[in-house]
Amino acid sequence: MSPAGTGPRQGGPARGRPRSEAVERAVVEGVMELLEDGVPLAELSIERIARTVGVGKATIYRRWSGKEELFVDVVRAAEPPDPELPGTSLRDDLVVLLESLRRRGLANRASAILHNVHAQMKSSPRIWAAYHDTVVLPRRRLGLEVLRRGRENGELRADVDMELLNDIIVGPLLVRTVLRPDADLPEGLAEQVVDTLLQGLRPVSRHA
Amino acid sequence: MSPAGTGPRQGGPARGRPRSEAVERAVVEGVMELLEDGVPLAELSIERIARTVGVGKATIYRRWSGKEELFVDVVRAAEPPDPELPGTSLRDDLVVLLESLRRRGLANRASAILHNVHAQMKSSPRIWAAYHDTVVLPRRRLGLEVLRRGRENGELRADVDMELLNDIIVGPLLVRTVLRPDADLPEGLAEQVVDTLLQGLRPVSRHA
Repeated sequence: MSPAGTGPRQGGPARGRPRSEAVERAVVEGVMELLEDGVPLAELSIERIARTVGVGKATIYRRWSGKEELFVDVVRAAEPPDPELPGTSLRDDLVVLLESLRRRGLANRASAILHNVHAQMKSSPRIWAAYHDTVVLPRRRLGLEVLRRGRENGELRADVDMELLNDIIVGPLLVRTVLRPDADLPEGLAEQVVDTLLQGLRPVSRHA
Repeated sequence: MSPAGTGPRQGGPARGRPRSEAVERAVVEGVMELLEDGVPLAELSIERIARTVGVGKATIYRRWSGKEELFVDVVRAAEPPDPELPGTSLRDDLVVLLESLRRRGLANRASAILHNVHAQMKSSPRIWAAYHDTVVLPRRRLGLEVLRRGRENGELRADVDMELLNDIIVGPLLVRTVLRPDADLPEGLAEQVVDTLLQGLRPVSRHA
């Protein structure tokens, strides 16, 4: 008997993770191909995806509850993986976090499909909520975790709340990647933002 | 003879500014009322607006080139006016600028109409471009002007470019008002952001 909600797995010896992952990849890549061919998100049914990939609808429904959940995986697959933090200092970890935001912004600009899917996601509250919960929220938690460590190590001021500090740190990159699609995202931007924020906007000589 | 493009003015002694402004206000308020009644932006024709306000279509076209230009004025009328800068210090001017962003965010949240019009504007590239040019860009220029004065007065570091400094300063407020509609916008937020940014994120004791 399987626990409620997970459903029985059929036609394979035990829980074939590698095989299952191959199927998941094939489905995600199939959706990407359809999007590349210009099929709008709204016209992508589970049936059409199953036909394109050459699997049964049940195979897809066994892995995803529906279109929403599947699209979030498609977007996640097209995005750079979550960054690995060096853990050497608050400054180094923040640079890696902002650099991953910068690369994500560049990837979005370079890929018309990705840009398009992002835009279409926002017009579907359900897909957007799923994207927020599985992609945005974990990233935000990662940022807050870095700040918490920095505060414990005495690298970060303790008189401003974490949520606000996080908005202060990701703000400039989000402004450039999301709100100002024409703004520069040059190499070295992450370092420059982090160092400027840590040091403050007053002239450097004042603190020297 | 009137200059090309402005058109003849009829039925009044000379250029009746006050009277003209009253008509403009009536038209803008008429559009607001239609929006409050739940009429979607797409269904608001100049003809329907003219009928509602009780003026001729020509009266509207004499003042606005079309729907796009008119809607931008409607949104602008519903927003708080541009802030008056005290000019006493970089810090004071920045606080006033960010406080006006905070109030704009609160106004947007409180007004379903305003929120709705903003969302609909974004789906129309022409209206969005008009809004950007007449509302967003002048505000951005005002911010850059404040930073330029601050740099000349030695209140602002000179080794980071102005555009980036501006994104750093407006970033946290834009994140909270535009990207995180559930985030807090408490009183005192503008002061806290400006003071934190000016001083830097390192523990305060390090510079003491």
